[in-house]
Amino acid sequence: MLKEIKSLQNSLIKDVVKLHQKKYRENLILIEGKKAVLEAIEYKLKIEKIFTLEILPEFKNFEMYLVTDEIMKKISTTESPATVIAIAKKPIYDIKKFLSYKKIILLDNIKDAGNLGTIIRASSAFGADGILLFNDTVDEYSPKTIRSAAGNMFKIPVKKVNMNELKEFKKEFNFIATVVNSNKNFSDYKPKGKLLVMFGSEADGLCNDLLNLADEKLTIKMANNVESLNLALCAGIVLYKLQE
Amino acid sequence: MLKEIKSLQNSLIKDVVKLHQKKYRENLILIEGKKAVLEAIEYKLKIEKIFTLEILPEFKNFEMYLVTDEIMKKISTTESPATVIAIAKKPIYDIKKFLSYKKIILLDNIKDAGNLGTIIRASSAFGADGILLFNDTVDEYSPKTIRSAAGNMFKIPVKKVNMNELKEFKKEFNFIATVVNSNKNFSDYKPKGKLLVMFGSEADGLCNDLLNLADEKLTIKMANNVESLNLALCAGIVLYKLQE
Repeated sequence: MLKEIKSLQNSLIKDVVKLHQKKYRENLILIEGKKAVLEAIEYKLKIEKIFTLEILPEFKNFEMYLVTDEIMKKISTTESPATVIAIAKKPIYDIKKFLSYKKIILLDNIKDAGNLGTIIRASSAFGADGILLFNDTVDEYSPKTIRSAAGNMFKIPVKKVNMNELKEFKKEFNFIATVVNSNKNFSDYKPKGKLLVMFGSEADGLCNDLLNLADEKLTIKMANNVESLNLALCAGIVLYKLQE
Repeated sequence: MLKEIKSLQNSLIKDVVKLHQKKYRENLILIEGKKAVLEAIEYKLKIEKIFTLEILPEFKNFEMYLVTDEIMKKISTTESPATVIAIAKKPIYDIKKFLSYKKIILLDNIKDAGNLGTIIRASSAFGADGILLFNDTVDEYSPKTIRSAAGNMFKIPVKKVNMNELKEFKKEFNFIATVVNSNKNFSDYKPKGKLLVMFGSEADGLCNDLLNLADEKLTIKMANNVESLNLALCAGIVLYKLQE
């Protein structure tokens, strides 16, 4: 089913552009780039519409709109516009499902969308089962996060969590806090049981409420008086080591 | 020694703005932020001038210029301007010095200034002795790189290298290539001797000339059909493991 849109004033185009802003992404999200759209289809996201510069047979079963370069530029969030953009229903994950997992990453108050995407990608690569977002963490469906996840956005569930829900996890999981100033070296840690590994914000680390839940506080030792590491890099090291 | 500059048209201010561009950074570099400037002083960079919004006693031995908010905004490369900016002589490192090192990182054709800074920071944190840049890698003194290094820019030497120079290293170092498709798992690798660990560009990996120099080709194993990792994250994992 193919339709053509040639006007920037088309109301559908205006609706797509709204999805650049978090406040309009309550039910729908924007997915940019052919690879990311194919991934969304593979992971069973409900694709509502696909906008493309040329007819692409792989999308023939979807509601496809042929658009101009100018329109594609307008609905893209990147300087070099994508050639394919989809809008899809935001995935809904059940927090109870997370209770059955063995290894969960929790991110507290993360502000950098690129960091979040990079951590989603690494979590998927190194066998985390899901990611929980706590406090005022950047929107997981921001275009930059999806881009940084580089085609791994929908392989594991990502969901916001609140303190009441988190307390349910406390009964079953060992809560690991990554901090900058513990005398327990992460390298010496031997993982046991179900793990919930917490990373704090780029600027301030973990909040006290989460530190109070921690069963272990671990630090990645650094030389040369380096005070801290890039958050995503830190998470990558922890994720890698925990699956080794 | 304190002078005041109040005009955006001041020729000194115009010279500082030029340092935003790589082509003007042959001899001088721009350092933004009080922390980064203090670090540059600590690591013996030759500071030529310091621009500041208020008189700062810690810089009293330097040629200090009091500037307006408007001027600081103009000479800053960030949206939120720094409060202190210095221009310093570009450090000069001797390639022969690198031959005495035990662990060197080589980056081939890296395009992302943020990745480069993050890798400089992690190299310093995990005990690499120096970083070599090969092919058309992003300028190590781009403001974004210095910012991403987060106060660790001058702790270890970073220097461009060419193939002839690199061949000298081949006599003494084990060349390790990190690749996406080797059947040798990085986790199983036991480091021996002097190491030169190579990472390729975000888009294309290592060039063939460097792959041909490799004594070992190693891959970080990933689950979930994840094809690749963020480059800085990958380097962080390798650096961490090699010093463990």
